[in-house]
Amino acid sequence: MQFVKTKEYIDQLQAAISNDDKTVILGLINDLHPADIAEIFDDLTIEEAKYIFLLLGDDLAADTLTEIEEDNLLRFIEVLPPKAIASKFIKRMDSDDAADVLGQMSNEQREAVLAQIDDRELLADIVDLLNYEEDTAGGLMAKEMVIVREDDTVIECLKELTRQAENIDEIYYIYVVNNFGMLKGVLTLKDLILNRTSKSVKDIYDPNVIYVNTSTHENDVASMMSKYDMVVLPVVDTLGRLVGRITVDDVIDIAREEADRDYQMMSGFAEDVEPSDKLGRQVRARLPWLVIGLIGGILSSVIISTYEGQLAIHPSMAFFLTLIAAMGGNVGVQSSAIIVQGLANNTLGVKSTFSRLFRELLSSLIMGAICALALFVFNYFFGSSQALTYAASVALLVVMVFASIFGTIVPLALNKVKIDPALATGPFITTINDIVGLFCYLSIGKFFFDYFAL
Amino acid sequence: MQFVKTKEYIDQLQAAISNDDKTVILGLINDLHPADIAEIFDDLTIEEAKYIFLLLGDDLAADTLTEIEEDNLLRFIEVLPPKAIASKFIKRMDSDDAADVLGQMSNEQREAVLAQIDDRELLADIVDLLNYEEDTAGGLMAKEMVIVREDDTVIECLKELTRQAENIDEIYYIYVVNNFGMLKGVLTLKDLILNRTSKSVKDIYDPNVIYVNTSTHENDVASMMSKYDMVVLPVVDTLGRLVGRITVDDVIDIAREEADRDYQMMSGFAEDVEPSDKLGRQVRARLPWLVIGLIGGILSSVIISTYEGQLAIHPSMAFFLTLIAAMGGNVGVQSSAIIVQGLANNTLGVKSTFSRLFRELLSSLIMGAICALALFVFNYFFGSSQALTYAASVALLVVMVFASIFGTIVPLALNKVKIDPALATGPFITTINDIVGLFCYLSIGKFFFDYFAL
Repeated sequence: MQFVKTKEYIDQLQAAISNDDKTVILGLINDLHPADIAEIFDDLTIEEAKYIFLLLGDDLAADTLTEIEEDNLLRFIEVLPPKAIASKFIKRMDSDDAADVLGQMSNEQREAVLAQIDDRELLADIVDLLNYEEDTAGGLMAKEMVIVREDDTVIECLKELTRQAENIDEIYYIYVVNNFGMLKGVLTLKDLILNRTSKSVKDIYDPNVIYVNTSTHENDVASMMSKYDMVVLPVVDTLGRLVGRITVDDVIDIAREEADRDYQMMSGFAEDVEPSDKLGRQVRARLPWLVIGLIGGILSSVIISTYEGQLAIHPSMAFFLTLIAAMGGNVGVQSSAIIVQGLANNTLGVKSTFSRLFRELLSSLIMGAICALALFVFNYFFGSSQALTYAASVALLVVMVFASIFGTIVPLALNKVKIDPALATGPFITTINDIVGLFCYLSIGKFFFDYFAL
Repeated sequence: MQFVKTKEYIDQLQAAISNDDKTVILGLINDLHPADIAEIFDDLTIEEAKYIFLLLGDDLAADTLTEIEEDNLLRFIEVLPPKAIASKFIKRMDSDDAADVLGQMSNEQREAVLAQIDDRELLADIVDLLNYEEDTAGGLMAKEMVIVREDDTVIECLKELTRQAENIDEIYYIYVVNNFGMLKGVLTLKDLILNRTSKSVKDIYDPNVIYVNTSTHENDVASMMSKYDMVVLPVVDTLGRLVGRITVDDVIDIAREEADRDYQMMSGFAEDVEPSDKLGRQVRARLPWLVIGLIGGILSSVIISTYEGQLAIHPSMAFFLTLIAAMGGNVGVQSSAIIVQGLANNTLGVKSTFSRLFRELLSSLIMGAICALALFVFNYFFGSSQALTYAASVALLVVMVFASIFGTIVPLALNKVKIDPALATGPFITTINDIVGLFCYLSIGKFFFDYFAL
């Protein structure tokens, strides 16, 4: 039923490739879904993948091409002649997939491939789609759809459907436009089947159609389709004319990618990382955040070093350095994460920033007081000095409240100035929290040690 | 087009509710999608929401009910009499939504509502659906679908479609079964329209149908539908008999929820948190991780305190305590996050654990060496002593390599024993990393200070 990729399977396949045994390879690949073939490519070298790719039939190869992830795709395309790309792949793809593939080529290669497309309608569709920004509804949409006019009858719709059915794999809805091409409503295939063929479209279509503009951001497209449980979403231009449609399969990936980006930001990756990525790429993605963390750590060490005199007299002040830094970081990340996720899922509600900060102040006071009290109890029984007992708990409370407020303000402010709020859960802010936290702790510690020494 | 919830809108609505002005309320609510109405409820008190809910027409109320999130839903239901729930809502819902709502009731209330359902077929469907685990394909599926037999003709299909169309809102596919009810293949409405009515289903259906079993986990359902770009996925029982279907809208939310859970785990939340949650709930979700962090911090302080003698002689040893702890944590979270995301997105590939660890060893050695070298250069020019310069860099390298390997092993091991691997990015592991890191640093520091003192 579902294909499961195993190490044994990949080993078998690689052995067959190195033996140049086409029968075994086709036996292994046969009946696989294009998405599965693309998945197998992740575990092969680019040469092995190319070898298999060239064995595939044209339709299967085109379908597989749309499923291959970007990095591999570019390496696949660069060795094929433009004529082959145009005739073997582009012509067999939906317009949105074709535009995606072409959009990833160099300008020269793209021009060369476009020059080889002889289907004028397809060419016009693709060139049109290439104009839209990649992360907008225009960049996501495809041109393939069945369109009828308000004044058509059901029998005319059925004829139009038959005419277009060859080019369109899956038809879920038929869109109704007026004489100016403006979107008026939607018809289901069920409506066509259940109504008399003489009926006019006008009388049976549903005018309550949800649509987006070509410039709508892909994240909004994704959340709308998810919220309104839509399978296909029509796209209109600024004049309200129907220009394309987005299917839900393109959108599932966006919701996941958005969540993944937030996750990676929080994990401290500068770019998209996958377990199968090359070592160099992994290091490149991971090192920037580590270096920022290192710089933060060095700044921390500078701050601590200014208190060297104090530490020489009261070495016990060092005991809670890591606790304070860690707790500030923990609480700050929590506060930022609530905001980041609220923004991503549109669950932030309509509360004002002020009331949100007030709430955060309250909850951080409660959590800070509980943690500070627990630390106080520990230090009261096992601590080395009264000064340290007071200093550690007071500093913990102050640091937790500060980090909460800071962690709430930063993503809200970033979002306001159109910077990805997820940045707040990443390197800079946790590092700043660490530094401010240490500074608080050390100065509060100095105060209490001086006070109890009097 | 799309409704945007604003503070002004909510204020208007709340004013109208307190004035008991039904005309204004209906004017505001009218034409909204059920999903929008449910979203508005998040910003109202439960009494306000109930007031609006009772103003809605029956169909709209039933649709809205399926969109309301769990917490609010239970509070809505508990005040309504079983007869009203059965006749007003359950009868108007799809079987999967009805089972979801019933599944959230207390046993007594559920029995009372079921007793009020007079449609025997619907009752049987719901009772059947209630038997499946919530997080399996059986728990997700609905019973509403159009089923035809292999031996039927197109005209018989059309008749069956017409008969069932009243009960089923959206029809995308027609499923083909044999005389034993076993799933054989699939037909699109397009197939019905484009083929002669005398043709037999046998000759036109597509036997390459992807399906799942009732016990398939919802995460696997979600990744299959996303991978194979499916709008509807049929569900079969252990005998291969078609028992239900899952639509993509139920699955979009699962992909997002799974990603959200991983994100929350990493942010340090013990339970699902939303910005609109009550203060008490937020504190309850956040405090456990903070307390674990606090315990870790206290353990760290105990470890540091055992080196108090050293610190008294060489207070500069305290300078890099936070740097070492932070870098161990950062690198460990990165390593775990790669594995967690790879497991969630099925991009882990088929490499053996050994080769994965070897790679991680290599990349952590590279990153550790770069960071250690940078720290060495800093300390060489600005550091206070040779011993500390060596100690800090050597400890940093050791800690980063350890944390990487540890961060890779833990989620893989958790996954093997069927515990959520995302736990590795949460409290325990970062705390253990901190403690091990400090121990390494302090003992390496002691070694170098002793060595250079000779």
